[in-house]
Amino acid sequence: MLEIKLKAFFPLLIQHLFLYHYLSSQLPISMACNNKFTLDSVRDALIREEDSIVFSLIERARFPYNSPAYDPSFLGNGFSIAEFYVRGTESLQAKIGRYQKPEDVPFFPNDLPSPLPPTKDSQSQVLLHPASASVTVNKAIWKFYFTELLPLFTTKGDDGNYASTVASDFVCLQAISRRIHYGKYVAEVKFTDAPQDYSPAISSKDRDKLMDLLTFVAVEEAVKKRVEKKARLFSQNVTLDENDSGKTQYKINPLVVSHLYDKWVMPLTKVVEVEYLLLRLS
Amino acid sequence: MLEIKLKAFFPLLIQHLFLYHYLSSQLPISMACNNKFTLDSVRDALIREEDSIVFSLIERARFPYNSPAYDPSFLGNGFSIAEFYVRGTESLQAKIGRYQKPEDVPFFPNDLPSPLPPTKDSQSQVLLHPASASVTVNKAIWKFYFTELLPLFTTKGDDGNYASTVASDFVCLQAISRRIHYGKYVAEVKFTDAPQDYSPAISSKDRDKLMDLLTFVAVEEAVKKRVEKKARLFSQNVTLDENDSGKTQYKINPLVVSHLYDKWVMPLTKVVEVEYLLLRLS
Repeated sequence: MLEIKLKAFFPLLIQHLFLYHYLSSQLPISMACNNKFTLDSVRDALIREEDSIVFSLIERARFPYNSPAYDPSFLGNGFSIAEFYVRGTESLQAKIGRYQKPEDVPFFPNDLPSPLPPTKDSQSQVLLHPASASVTVNKAIWKFYFTELLPLFTTKGDDGNYASTVASDFVCLQAISRRIHYGKYVAEVKFTDAPQDYSPAISSKDRDKLMDLLTFVAVEEAVKKRVEKKARLFSQNVTLDENDSGKTQYKINPLVVSHLYDKWVMPLTKVVEVEYLLLRLS
Repeated sequence: MLEIKLKAFFPLLIQHLFLYHYLSSQLPISMACNNKFTLDSVRDALIREEDSIVFSLIERARFPYNSPAYDPSFLGNGFSIAEFYVRGTESLQAKIGRYQKPEDVPFFPNDLPSPLPPTKDSQSQVLLHPASASVTVNKAIWKFYFTELLPLFTTKGDDGNYASTVASDFVCLQAISRRIHYGKYVAEVKFTDAPQDYSPAISSKDRDKLMDLLTFVAVEEAVKKRVEKKARLFSQNVTLDENDSGKTQYKINPLVVSHLYDKWVMPLTKVVEVEYLLLRLS
């Protein structure tokens, strides 16, 4: 039984060992590929997004939890300060042409205005299945971010800086959402490389089987280690005293970032991949 | 002549050697002080702001220069995308209570709406001279940022991501502006510690003398070295391969950050200090 399973997984295993190699190496990779995005470019984008997520969390950690910013009765208009700000900024960003790309997914997509400037045709949108635009897990991201993640990396308290606080929240939410919805490209690359491995599970709408096919523990462990390392490096207090290393206090707990990836970012990326694949043959 | 000058500067020199010690040390400092902000807290805020500036520049460097975002004729409404976005976001942030603190200075202060939520009285505003709110160098920041700094750390080109680009620009502008306008606190601390040193130059409105009193080359050199070190650490490509260090390509040139501090951040901070001091006795 184990042998059969291993055989069936062998091509995917090779592919993921490649991915693992790429993930743990910064050497230039030459790949002959006609696609606009490749395993290589997808990997680079995911790795680069880690830095943005770590930076955004460090910036949010400047402020305490600031619970009035999340109180829906505080403004008197039915919205929390956070929701009021995110709705307003998304509307403004839509006007100047955001949300044309598969990885840029609004949290409040209803009634977004049309873009004012002429927008370039998004190459990436063309290369993904047209149904990709409908795939979103932003409700889940909104929920875990405010109720579970935020208390893990902010101090308790209220310093009154609600505007700066929710502006920082929005940067975190956008970075996390972009990373997770980049799963659409991951799924497309994996499918294009081995359609025979995915098509049966897609046809039978077997979410569990697809999730199995998309899960590679060694790759996920490497990602967790790398984001923890990034959090340590980027959140240290840097001084000119060379003897000061080791005494540093981190601005965020590096383990919170690996936990974020373990519990939410990587599972939700795979949800995006599964939902994308289920639409891939339609 | 030199001896007289040295004697006059001695108390300030001692004060700045203290500041220099603080700048190059992360050890906790105990200071008996009744002020809400002290040399210690001002120093910590300035050092913390360096990290925010470096993060924001690294994030902006994800996109090329993207000149259409700065073309005033592109949108057809008289504003560049950048100005349209900054005006809109400042208005939104003012509604949720921003711009109540001396270091939070809008780029487009006219016609900003009143805050919707009840705002806390800003302790810091109370502790500074009331005229401090009028001190702003944001026009100079806007000008050097777009015309001189941006081409130094972005690649040439146009990838069409104008919304993300100007959202990143706004984060950079806010971080740089906050750091520079923190000069109001620096000036207040310095004045409170030694009013006798500053009062004659304030009374005679001697800007050059005040600039002299506020300039300490050794401190500035230390700041430049530290921000360059931060840029190196935070913009490196982090991998799990321990042998990979030394091969890294930085996401921004660390020398651009020390140049930013040398040419604009520190001189404009001192302009804010001088302008604040000139109002201090009114």
